[in-house]
Amino acid sequence: MIIETNQACDLVIFGTKGDLARRKLLPALYKLEKSQKIHPDTRIIGTGRADWNTEDYIKIVKKAIKMFLNEKIDEKIWKKLRSRLNFFYIDVFQDLHFLELKNILNQKKNIIIYYCAVPSNTFNAIFTGLGKVNLNSFPSRIIIEKPLGVSLETSKKINNQIAKYFLESQIFRIDHYLGKESILNLLALRFSNSFFFHSWNNKIIDHIQITVSEEVGIENRWNYFDQMGQTRDMVQNHLLQILTIVSMDKPKNITPEGIRDEKLKILRSLKKIDLNEIHIKTARGQYASGIINGKKVPSYIEENGANKHSKTETFVSIKVDINNDRWFGVPFYLRTGKRLAYKYSEIVIVFKKISKNLFQEFNKNLSPNKLIIRLEPNESIKIYFLNKVPGLSKEYKLKSDKMEFNFNINNTKNFVDAYERLLFESMRGIQSLFVCREEVEEAWKWIDPIINGWKKTNINTVQLYKSGTWGPKSSDEIIMRDGRFWETFN
Amino acid sequence: MIIETNQACDLVIFGTKGDLARRKLLPALYKLEKSQKIHPDTRIIGTGRADWNTEDYIKIVKKAIKMFLNEKIDEKIWKKLRSRLNFFYIDVFQDLHFLELKNILNQKKNIIIYYCAVPSNTFNAIFTGLGKVNLNSFPSRIIIEKPLGVSLETSKKINNQIAKYFLESQIFRIDHYLGKESILNLLALRFSNSFFFHSWNNKIIDHIQITVSEEVGIENRWNYFDQMGQTRDMVQNHLLQILTIVSMDKPKNITPEGIRDEKLKILRSLKKIDLNEIHIKTARGQYASGIINGKKVPSYIEENGANKHSKTETFVSIKVDINNDRWFGVPFYLRTGKRLAYKYSEIVIVFKKISKNLFQEFNKNLSPNKLIIRLEPNESIKIYFLNKVPGLSKEYKLKSDKMEFNFNINNTKNFVDAYERLLFESMRGIQSLFVCREEVEEAWKWIDPIINGWKKTNINTVQLYKSGTWGPKSSDEIIMRDGRFWETFN
Repeated sequence: MIIETNQACDLVIFGTKGDLARRKLLPALYKLEKSQKIHPDTRIIGTGRADWNTEDYIKIVKKAIKMFLNEKIDEKIWKKLRSRLNFFYIDVFQDLHFLELKNILNQKKNIIIYYCAVPSNTFNAIFTGLGKVNLNSFPSRIIIEKPLGVSLETSKKINNQIAKYFLESQIFRIDHYLGKESILNLLALRFSNSFFFHSWNNKIIDHIQITVSEEVGIENRWNYFDQMGQTRDMVQNHLLQILTIVSMDKPKNITPEGIRDEKLKILRSLKKIDLNEIHIKTARGQYASGIINGKKVPSYIEENGANKHSKTETFVSIKVDINNDRWFGVPFYLRTGKRLAYKYSEIVIVFKKISKNLFQEFNKNLSPNKLIIRLEPNESIKIYFLNKVPGLSKEYKLKSDKMEFNFNINNTKNFVDAYERLLFESMRGIQSLFVCREEVEEAWKWIDPIINGWKKTNINTVQLYKSGTWGPKSSDEIIMRDGRFWETFN
Repeated sequence: MIIETNQACDLVIFGTKGDLARRKLLPALYKLEKSQKIHPDTRIIGTGRADWNTEDYIKIVKKAIKMFLNEKIDEKIWKKLRSRLNFFYIDVFQDLHFLELKNILNQKKNIIIYYCAVPSNTFNAIFTGLGKVNLNSFPSRIIIEKPLGVSLETSKKINNQIAKYFLESQIFRIDHYLGKESILNLLALRFSNSFFFHSWNNKIIDHIQITVSEEVGIENRWNYFDQMGQTRDMVQNHLLQILTIVSMDKPKNITPEGIRDEKLKILRSLKKIDLNEIHIKTARGQYASGIINGKKVPSYIEENGANKHSKTETFVSIKVDINNDRWFGVPFYLRTGKRLAYKYSEIVIVFKKISKNLFQEFNKNLSPNKLIIRLEPNESIKIYFLNKVPGLSKEYKLKSDKMEFNFNINNTKNFVDAYERLLFESMRGIQSLFVCREEVEEAWKWIDPIINGWKKTNINTVQLYKSGTWGPKSSDEIIMRDGRFWETFN
C-alpha cells in the first residue's frame, strides 16, 4: 500500500487530557494509523499538566481509544501507534517548558504541528510560548478550533495574537463540518455534474433551506454556552460554511486559494440584516422541557448550573439574502437548534415551479422539484419530481415521486470521520478544508449586527419552544411569510 | 365509482377473428369493463365472415380473453361485458351487408366507432361500404392501425381513401406506443419538472439515444415483413413518435391540436439524409442464427417461407439531426432490431461534460451525466451522476452513481395496457394520443429518401448480425465515429 502522507511530523497535542483529544483526536489518529496514512517517522507528543510519564500516557490513550472508537482495537495497529506516543509535561505559562519541549522535537527532519485542543483563553500563552523559543518558525503548523472569538472584535484579537508568531499559511483553523465527506462531496455534486451545475441559479431555484438540528441540550456546558448562544456557536461557523459551499461560484481551481476566494466572495455578498428587518428575518427560541426519544428532558433554565433568567437562544432561524447575480431573489433559510425532534443536517434546494404548467387544470397544488442533500446522518441525495399518476383518467393528474442515492448503502467502508480527514490534511499541509482569517472575520461582520440588533430592539424576543419539536412558532413564520414551508424531516 | 366515459358507443370491430382483436382488443375491453370505464349503454359488435351467432361469438371472446388476459376472469365483470357483445356477419365487399349493419346500430343514441382490425388492403372496402350507406357521418369515429402505407405515396393513397368518407376529426390512427404509460409520462417529466424542463436543450445535452429492441424474429409474418423491413415497420412510426415526444417544444396546451402542432414541427425539422451521408448516418442488419435465452434460433433467411436471397433489414440504426435552435448540434441515435439480446425500449439522454472540470487532474475519463428513461419493461427513470469516492486520498477521485425511480415498485396496480388506454380515449373522442395525417406523411417524407438512398447506393449494405447480439458492427460505427457509445443494456 502506498503511504500517502509524504511528510514526517511531530504532532504536539496541547490539552491531550481534554474531551476533544480523547473523543475525537486520539481515535482519529488510530484510524489514520489503520489506513496507513501516517508517515513511519511521525511522532505524537501529548502535552499537559499531568504527572504522567509516557507509559502512563500510553495507557490513557488506549483507554480513550477503547471508549470512543466505534470498533475493536487491532493490537497490531495499536502497537504501531503506541510506538509514536510521547508525553511531555507542560505549563503553558512557563517559558522554560517550551525550551524543554524544543529539545525533544525534531525540527530538522519533522514538520512540527501544534494542535491547540484547549480553551481559547489559553491560546495566547501557547502562541507566545512557542514564539519566544522560535518553535513558531515556518514550516511548523498550528491548528486551532472554535470558538475564535464571540464577535468581530474578539476574533480579530485572537487572529492578531496568532499572527504575531505564525504566518497565515501556517495556521489551520478547524471547522469540523469542512471535514465531513458529505460536505466535501458538495464540490463534486455541484461542479462535476452538468445536470446540477447548470441548474444552480435564480432562474431555476426558488429558495434553499439549511437545517442543522441537535437533540442534545446543554448539559455540562451551560456557562460557556450561555455566553455564546446558538447563533455564535453554530451559525457563524458551521451554517455559514455550509451556505458558502452551497452558493459559491465555481472556483478557478481546487487549490486552497481558489476555494477560499470564492467562499469569501459569498461572505462579502451576504446582505446585512438591519434593525428594520430583524424581526422578519430572524427568530430565536429557547428550549422548554419536553420529551425526546420518549424521555422527559428539562428546560434550558432548569439545566445544571443555569441562571433562571437567561435569555440566551438555543435555537435560531435566519433568512439570508445574497447580493449577487446568481442568487438575486433566492433566499437561504437557515435554522439550527438544540433539543429538537431529531438530530440531522440537511440542505434542501427547492426549485421554481414551471410557469404555466400544462397540467395546471387538473393539479391545483403541484409540489415543486426538490433536491435534498442529507449531510448527516444517513448521508443521501434525493430528488423529488413529478410523474403522471398511472391509470386511465380524463384528468392528467401528477404526483411527486422520489429518487434517492444513499451513500451508506453504496459505500459501506470508506466513510471517514471529519477529524480523521482534517488531521490528515494538516499533516499533508493542505489548507483547502480549513478556514482562513478573512472568512472568520467576514462571518463575524455579518453576525455582529444581528446580535447587536437583538439587543437594541425588543420586537424580536426569544420564544420558548417545547423540547422535541422543531423550534418556536416564529421560526415557521419567517418562512411562511414568504409562502414557503420548512421541509419536514423524514 | 364515477363512470368516466360519458358517451355510449356502438363499437364495431372489423376483423374480430384476427390476432389483433383476440390478443389485444378483447382483453383490453375486459379491463375497461373491470375499471368501469365503459358506458352502461355501450355495445360491442364483432363482425367478420364467420358462421357465428352471438352465442358462438361470446364463447370465442371468452376463450380469447382467457388466453390473453394476464389475470383470472371475474365472472361478474364478464357477465357485464358479455351482455354488450353482438356478432354480425359481414363481407365488406357486399354493400348490402353495410345496410344491414346500419339497421342494428343505434346511430341516434350511440356514437358509432369502427375499429379496422384488418389488413390494410381491406381498409378501402370498409370506408366505401360505410360511406355508401351513410354510416360514415359525424360523429362516428374510425380507428385504423399501421401499416398506413409503405411510402409517402402509398400512405397518401390510404389517407385520401379514408378522407373521402371521414373528416380528420373522425379518424383515430393508432400507434400503440402513444398509449403506453411511460410515453405519456414523458409529458409530465419534461413539462412539469423545472429541473428537467430547463435542462432540455443543446447547451446541456450532448446527444440522445432511442433503442427499441425485440427478441422475437419474424416467425409467421415473413412475407409481410420482407416487403416492409424494420425501418418502415418500426422507425417510421414508433421510433419517430418517441423522438417527437422527447424533442418537441412545450405545447401551448394539452389539446390534441396543441400536441400535434409541436410534434409536426419536429417532423418537419428532421434533417433529410441524402446520398452522401447515408453510409455514415445509417446502418442496416439482418439476423443470422444465434442463441437467445439459451435457445438456438434460425437466421432470417432460414425462417418459414423465407426467400434465401432477401436483403431486407431486420435491424436499423439511424443518426438523426433536428434542424432547430433547441437541438442544433445534438444528434439523436435511433436503433431497432429483431432477435437482439433483450427486448426493451429506452431513451438515454446523455448530458454534456462540464467544460474545465475542477477534478480533471485526478479523473481522466469522467462519465457524463445521464438520464435514462426505460419505457419497457420495468419502466423506470435513472439518473447517473458523479460523486466523490469516499475516503482519504490526496486525489479527489470521482465515480458515477445511480439514482432510480422504478414505476413498477411504486405503482403496482394502475399500469394500463396501451390498447386499453387507446380504446378508452377513442370512446372519449380525444385525439391527443392518435396520429394525424400530416404526421404520418411528414414521417414518410423523411423515411422515403433513406429507403430510396439504400437502393441507389451500394456503399451501405445490409450486414448480417448474430441473433442474441446488439446488431451489426456498422451500428456501433455510426455512434463511435462521433466519439460516443451505445448505452449498454442493464
